[in-house]
Amino acid sequence: MLTGDQYLQSLRDGRQLYVNGHAVPDVTEEPLLRASALAAAEGYDRHYQPGEDASGPYFLIPTSVDELRQVQDMYLDWDFPTISTSNGLLMVLTAASRMRADFPQYAERALAYFEDAKRRDIRIVQTITDAKGNRSLSPSKQDDPDLYVRIVDRSADGVVIRGAKLHISSAAIAHELMVMPTKRMKPGEEDYSVAAAVPVNAPGVKIINASFAPRPDLDPDFYPYSSRHVMTEGFIVFDDVFVPNDRLFLAGEVEHSATFAHALGLWERLGSVGSYVRLADTLVGLAQLIAEANGLERIGHIKDKIAEMITYATLIRAGFEAAVQHSTFTPEGWASPDEMFTNAAKYHAAAEFSRMVRHLHDIAGGSVLTAPSLRDLRNPETGPYLEKYMRTMEGVDAEYRMRLFHTIRDFTADAFGGWKHVTVIQAGGGLYAQKVVVTNHYDMENAKALALETAGITPDGTVVSAAEVPSAELTDGYAPL
Amino acid sequence: MLTGDQYLQSLRDGRQLYVNGHAVPDVTEEPLLRASALAAAEGYDRHYQPGEDASGPYFLIPTSVDELRQVQDMYLDWDFPTISTSNGLLMVLTAASRMRADFPQYAERALAYFEDAKRRDIRIVQTITDAKGNRSLSPSKQDDPDLYVRIVDRSADGVVIRGAKLHISSAAIAHELMVMPTKRMKPGEEDYSVAAAVPVNAPGVKIINASFAPRPDLDPDFYPYSSRHVMTEGFIVFDDVFVPNDRLFLAGEVEHSATFAHALGLWERLGSVGSYVRLADTLVGLAQLIAEANGLERIGHIKDKIAEMITYATLIRAGFEAAVQHSTFTPEGWASPDEMFTNAAKYHAAAEFSRMVRHLHDIAGGSVLTAPSLRDLRNPETGPYLEKYMRTMEGVDAEYRMRLFHTIRDFTADAFGGWKHVTVIQAGGGLYAQKVVVTNHYDMENAKALALETAGITPDGTVVSAAEVPSAELTDGYAPL
Amino acid sequence: MLTGDQYLQSLRDGRQLYVNGHAVPDVTEEPLLRASALAAAEGYDRHYQPGEDASGPYFLIPTSVDELRQVQDMYLDWDFPTISTSNGLLMVLTAASRMRADFPQYAERALAYFEDAKRRDIRIVQTITDAKGNRSLSPSKQDDPDLYVRIVDRSADGVVIRGAKLHISSAAIAHELMVMPTKRMKPGEEDYSVAAAVPVNAPGVKIINASFAPRPDLDPDFYPYSSRHVMTEGFIVFDDVFVPNDRLFLAGEVEHSATFAHALGLWERLGSVGSYVRLADTLVGLAQLIAEANGLERIGHIKDKIAEMITYATLIRAGFEAAVQHSTFTPEGWASPDEMFTNAAKYHAAAEFSRMVRHLHDIAGGSVLTAPSLRDLRNPETGPYLEKYMRTMEGVDAEYRMRLFHTIRDFTADAFGGWKHVTVIQAGGGLYAQKVVVTNHYDMENAKALALETAGITPDGTVVSAAEVPSAELTDGYAPL
Amino acid sequence: MLTGDQYLQSLRDGRQLYVNGHAVPDVTEEPLLRASALAAAEGYDRHYQPGEDASGPYFLIPTSVDELRQVQDMYLDWDFPTISTSNGLLMVLTAASRMRADFPQYAERALAYFEDAKRRDIRIVQTITDAKGNRSLSPSKQDDPDLYVRIVDRSADGVVIRGAKLHISSAAIAHELMVMPTKRMKPGEEDYSVAAAVPVNAPGVKIINASFAPRPDLDPDFYPYSSRHVMTEGFIVFDDVFVPNDRLFLAGEVEHSATFAHALGLWERLGSVGSYVRLADTLVGLAQLIAEANGLERIGHIKDKIAEMITYATLIRAGFEAAVQHSTFTPEGWASPDEMFTNAAKYHAAAEFSRMVRHLHDIAGGSVLTAPSLRDLRNPETGPYLEKYMRTMEGVDAEYRMRLFHTIRDFTADAFGGWKHVTVIQAGGGLYAQKVVVTNHYDMENAKALALETAGITPDGTVVSAAEVPSAELTDGYAPL
Repeated sequence: MLTGDQYLQSLRDGRQLYVNGHAVPDVTEEPLLRASALAAAEGYDRHYQPGEDASGPYFLIPTSVDELRQVQDMYLDWDFPTISTSNGLLMVLTAASRMRADFPQYAERALAYFEDAKRRDIRIVQTITDAKGNRSLSPSKQDDPDLYVRIVDRSADGVVIRGAKLHISSAAIAHELMVMPTKRMKPGEEDYSVAAAVPVNAPGVKIINASFAPRPDLDPDFYPYSSRHVMTEGFIVFDDVFVPNDRLFLAGEVEHSATFAHALGLWERLGSVGSYVRLADTLVGLAQLIAEANGLERIGHIKDKIAEMITYATLIRAGFEAAVQHSTFTPEGWASPDEMFTNAAKYHAAAEFSRMVRHLHDIAGGSVLTAPSLRDLRNPETGPYLEKYMRTMEGVDAEYRMRLFHTIRDFTADAFGGWKHVTVIQAGGGLYAQKVVVTNHYDMENAKALALETAGITPDGTVVSAAEVPSAELTDGYAPL
Repeated sequence: MLTGDQYLQSLRDGRQLYVNGHAVPDVTEEPLLRASALAAAEGYDRHYQPGEDASGPYFLIPTSVDELRQVQDMYLDWDFPTISTSNGLLMVLTAASRMRADFPQYAERALAYFEDAKRRDIRIVQTITDAKGNRSLSPSKQDDPDLYVRIVDRSADGVVIRGAKLHISSAAIAHELMVMPTKRMKPGEEDYSVAAAVPVNAPGVKIINASFAPRPDLDPDFYPYSSRHVMTEGFIVFDDVFVPNDRLFLAGEVEHSATFAHALGLWERLGSVGSYVRLADTLVGLAQLIAEANGLERIGHIKDKIAEMITYATLIRAGFEAAVQHSTFTPEGWASPDEMFTNAAKYHAAAEFSRMVRHLHDIAGGSVLTAPSLRDLRNPETGPYLEKYMRTMEGVDAEYRMRLFHTIRDFTADAFGGWKHVTVIQAGGGLYAQKVVVTNHYDMENAKALALETAGITPDGTVVSAAEVPSAELTDGYAPL
Repeated sequence: MLTGDQYLQSLRDGRQLYVNGHAVPDVTEEPLLRASALAAAEGYDRHYQPGEDASGPYFLIPTSVDELRQVQDMYLDWDFPTISTSNGLLMVLTAASRMRADFPQYAERALAYFEDAKRRDIRIVQTITDAKGNRSLSPSKQDDPDLYVRIVDRSADGVVIRGAKLHISSAAIAHELMVMPTKRMKPGEEDYSVAAAVPVNAPGVKIINASFAPRPDLDPDFYPYSSRHVMTEGFIVFDDVFVPNDRLFLAGEVEHSATFAHALGLWERLGSVGSYVRLADTLVGLAQLIAEANGLERIGHIKDKIAEMITYATLIRAGFEAAVQHSTFTPEGWASPDEMFTNAAKYHAAAEFSRMVRHLHDIAGGSVLTAPSLRDLRNPETGPYLEKYMRTMEGVDAEYRMRLFHTIRDFTADAFGGWKHVTVIQAGGGLYAQKVVVTNHYDMENAKALALETAGITPDGTVVSAAEVPSAELTDGYAPL
Repeated sequence: MLTGDQYLQSLRDGRQLYVNGHAVPDVTEEPLLRASALAAAEGYDRHYQPGEDASGPYFLIPTSVDELRQVQDMYLDWDFPTISTSNGLLMVLTAASRMRADFPQYAERALAYFEDAKRRDIRIVQTITDAKGNRSLSPSKQDDPDLYVRIVDRSADGVVIRGAKLHISSAAIAHELMVMPTKRMKPGEEDYSVAAAVPVNAPGVKIINASFAPRPDLDPDFYPYSSRHVMTEGFIVFDDVFVPNDRLFLAGEVEHSATFAHALGLWERLGSVGSYVRLADTLVGLAQLIAEANGLERIGHIKDKIAEMITYATLIRAGFEAAVQHSTFTPEGWASPDEMFTNAAKYHAAAEFSRMVRHLHDIAGGSVLTAPSLRDLRNPETGPYLEKYMRTMEGVDAEYRMRLFHTIRDFTADAFGGWKHVTVIQAGGGLYAQKVVVTNHYDMENAKALALETAGITPDGTVVSAAEVPSAELTDGYAPL
């Protein structure tokens, strides 16, 4: 296993990074990006165990409901690249299991890759969304054939790929990119059906970065959350990158072009749902704290809004619990969470998030925006006034209350908050995509059977005369008033 | 155990029933009510086993998660009085468990009552909502002291009660009424703190009935569901009814006045949630069947609406699963479902029901209302026209499609549908009541701790300078883009 | 003009009507339908003025905003066939105006028809929705070519039409059917592009009726609204009906096949919006009355729900006012309400109706369903109990409160209520159709221009460097905190 | 009238300003604030006309519906202090009109102040929200009596006030503060019933500022909107500020303590609604532009979401139109917009805003967050890649599309976007406050009368037997199917 220092050293590998118009020669020195690297290094140190056979818990393959729940619980304490590594490898294994019958060589490579990654203790990020060009045209119909990543050359040793992948969280501080098709490809789009593991420092890989993080010269106390919690998003260019055969998991087999995306969705959305439980609880907590700090916690409409936030948190939690509890198992014995519950919870979390933030803003009031900075509190000319007027009662002083307002702004109504508003919708695909998956995994035959029974129509479509149904069959299990 | 016939015979016990302005000398002969009695009789026959020790599964006290799930699954096939008996006795046992420390005699009576009810194989209905008068005044402040059921006389042998209880489903066809206070009573309201089991035919009990059932002379095929599924609602008067001590479970102890209502809510709402899963699935099935019958099942906005209905069904199901899975156990070893999950699912089911019906109506179109009757289909003058114009394609004939429209109207847009719209909101208390319970059982301390951590405030309220947090502590478990 | 008696006499004209499986020889004698006829007769009497030149206000063509508002206000007091006559003729005139340039002969026939209808003082219903068969196929692709009304024969004198029209309100008690295509027809579908005025008693016309009205032998006091307010819905068959040329307004000109439906939508939706204002106000009133009767009108969450209902009513009213105020005028000087405002208000009214009813049910409580009948109140055995327990306080007696509950059930949670739930969605097309119209009439170019300005992009697509915008151009008209 | 330069010079008047922990000796030099001052100066230049009698249109008192609409239309092009001056003076005049009967001297002072402000061409900001302390206690019950602004000394010449006012937009660049009570005061709270005009540079006034504006050293092109549109929010301290009598408009008369807040709400909310129409249209435009740039504008669920955004924009517009159209007039002949329509539109705009932004985010996709900066586009190492992969089709190049993404982020998902999320809720009071005003101005008596009529209850409360209503009275104005 690697220590944090070894990890940081490993990032100085010639990778080509850019941000805000300039090159980044060393990610550990770049002001906007280094905090991410340090956070990941801290994760390495926390997990480090000496010895040849040691490996991080992020390489655990859960084989029971309890193990699956444990892994998901651990996610809440891990840095993002570590979560992504776990998620990405579970995705690869799920895909391998589904491809084994058709393409055993890919399944074997995937397993070998898993073992190799574990041995090297690397961090891997999932690399899926293409540039896409005109969405109304398929990959092969674009006026530039590179708008989806594709194979541009093949040799006995491997392939060469070209294109771009967008929205790749933590790419700048990971070791490898798990590249896969963004969607199902059709016959004739074989070159677009490519999955591979690509080192971040492979020749031809370039990453242009963006982040919600406040600029390093800004007052960190004005950003109580986002100054401490970072995420980089990478725009990754593959400028004719060579991939050797042993890192190639799909290279033209269109019938499995969607296997990776489906497997990714499975794991990523479960992880999202787990994190949204915490997110929803946090929103409830902020609402309750600011209501108490303002003396409003017993007002009817305030309690009502908090109760809606609690119900929101509880339904997401229920979806998470049901998804884990109803796991199925692959032939290899690996646990897979239930897709229907996972996606329903993800959809609800995403669809109602902005309404919950609206409740929080409605409860908290305008000081979310206008609370002066702690620097004004420290300024002897203005501090006493803020001490006097930003406190509300015994036990609620200005500094505490100002911090709550700054946090609510930072967490929900500033750059990080905006990032959250968008990611909650877009992570794992927009709302439409989640509806499609819920529908696909729902037991529609059962629903139709219930409807037919309700209608007095037999399964073969015969309409039964209501007068002929003996009253002895009358039953009603529906709830009482 | 009783057979169906024995049960029907047992209802001819002198009970005083009324409906639509006239007395009902024999409930098994009254057109509007007899179907309910016959349905319950059918339930008796289905469960009947000979022998002294035999007892129905509705007397099972679940002691594990699996048993609890089994009982709830069985509810879906039982008639309402049987469900109510199970629910009511589980309520009594839960209440007994909670009262045992303070009032062991009540706990013993409750247990003895449970055993006696089991031995006699009776049906019991929960009897809770009072007349209430002016809701802005407490029971003892009403201008008529009888607007909440109360003790008007006490003797060594028992008490005499007076008042009315409303919305008592299936009261007319049950054997006993499990009477309990509708809400927490305050000191000074001892006479209103009364819980008791009262036979339906006890002197002084009178029941005035209502029902959504179509009048018996109407075309049953126009009401494909409600002509076969019945429910009576009873307005029950207690005109100075004597209750002997061994049927008295509370008689003045205000500190336990809400214990019964809380225990009732627990069990009734879980049962409701279980039935709403089926209700939601049925709505999905009806939407899908009518979309297919109209050739609309591949249209984007139709699929989108059905996907929302599926998500609705799935979230309720998730809440039910999580509630059962997270059961706790009383000192006696009896399972209790999780209240937070139960109530969140109940709230969501109730709050969104009307929107789901709106989707169904939007998908189905105007023939929900205007489809002529099957009698018009049988009429040789009009039948051929309906055959021709109510069919849509190979495999979808007029009779089948008309039945679907009639069912959607009957199930969601006629007398039964209206009953469902109201009960889904009111069963177990209105939306506000459910929000209160969710809130009470939510782990607010955890939410506040998460919020404080997000804000960089220590548990003791100290605001930590963001600049002083070492970057090594940076983590982010939130979901990727 | 006709008197009510003359009108009733005019309905005995050999028309072929059916209901519930039997023929209706005389609509004025049929228990389920006669109330509609009597209501329309009362309308005749109310409007009757003697003299050759007299004509009803329903033949007024508004030529100013004020006149348009007056006509719409009058709608609220008219019976449905009278409203439909006004709406239908305004539709015909609007369509004539739009067709005048291309087909002046149709415009002239339409005007002549208007004058003739006015002279004869007849009632006309709009007849638009076809049987439609498989919705995924166009009219000419159906396996039965008659699933949309079509011309099956043409001669020098006129055409013969065949097919069915569904959901035709008040058809049984009107004089003529204004038949028009249900949607835009394509080249090759000339025979389906037919608009015509057809007498109800024309040979080959048959009407099968449905109604939400309570059966005549039911207690009218249990249906306080629907026993007094009636509507019949007709399923109309055209079994090879001859239409003479002077009643033919379209006969094959596919380019104008949608002109009638668009014009119909314009007028019908404005009328709907006007009636929804009253509907919404009525829901508010019922909520407030029952809250007051229960002593709940000062409870926070009750007031909150009523405030949402009030906001709903007010937004619909605003849409109605804006639609009328922003009328445009045809070359003939006839007023046309604004389509965008009309459709946005219609959409909002329809989309939120079920949520408003949910509020009403949440406020009112379970007695909406379980309040016994007034017959039970009149029964000396049960009346005193209901007097005692259904009253709540000084000034709120049992009869008044029971009537409120019966009304809420009848109006929103029984057969009429279900009819309302469906019609509010389906009248003028489902929610999707209304969204399409709003979109079509919205000024998207203006919206895009605002967005480009916000983005700092010039109208020709040039991205302006933000640094180059002089600060002197900074402005902000947005609202203050 | 003043020129822009004269205005900028006038701000160098010794005012005591602070921001981010330091004092601001000259607002026109402070990086974070100067853009606001320059924008206001530009407004002066635009309006400037020479001559003694010249005055800005912001001093127009509308006396007709058309004039009112004109003023509101002009708001959309004015800087905020100018809008606030107009709004504030209309508020003062409205309040004066309402106070005239009781306190003619205040009405005269207000009018004199209006004329003086017009003569001096000053900018005035409305100064209302107090520090408030513990919201569950009234002003006089706070543990610090200064938590609401109050009179601490009175003399023959005037009064001395102490306290703080929060969320005062543009205070730092205005000339005077129109101070008024934040809510109705009760007897005993005379000292809190104070309204006055206070110069920003009056001794004892100190303003601590906050702003959503990006820091001046950040890339303005990454903030295409907020780098050009600015707003400062002031936390204003009144440290024993003297107010002379002629600037005092209320000084202890509790019966008029809420008159100013009500008048403020009237004008501020109408202005808000006007700006929200533009805001909503802008959201629609952004959604349509990005959908077109991505080739998605013909996809069903995308069109559906845009249609909902259009309906949202249209309903707000309808509310604005109806509010203006239904203006009432004071005895002086001054126009007052309708409060019910204004507040319903304001509520709808606020309550649904976050859902509309959700639609925009759902349509736009993840590049809202991850689109690299234009600096990366200008960097020759990365620019060609972005040119290649951020374009989508002929006519949609990288720069244009990146600017759209940056704008959507800046406008809805970054610091300005967060400010907008909060202000749309909080401006003019939270959602609850708006519901209260809608309720207060709704014609509840009419709604109750309609409900009684529906119920068949006479105005005096008599329940009419349904059987006795002659059928001739049957009517139905409701909409057809």
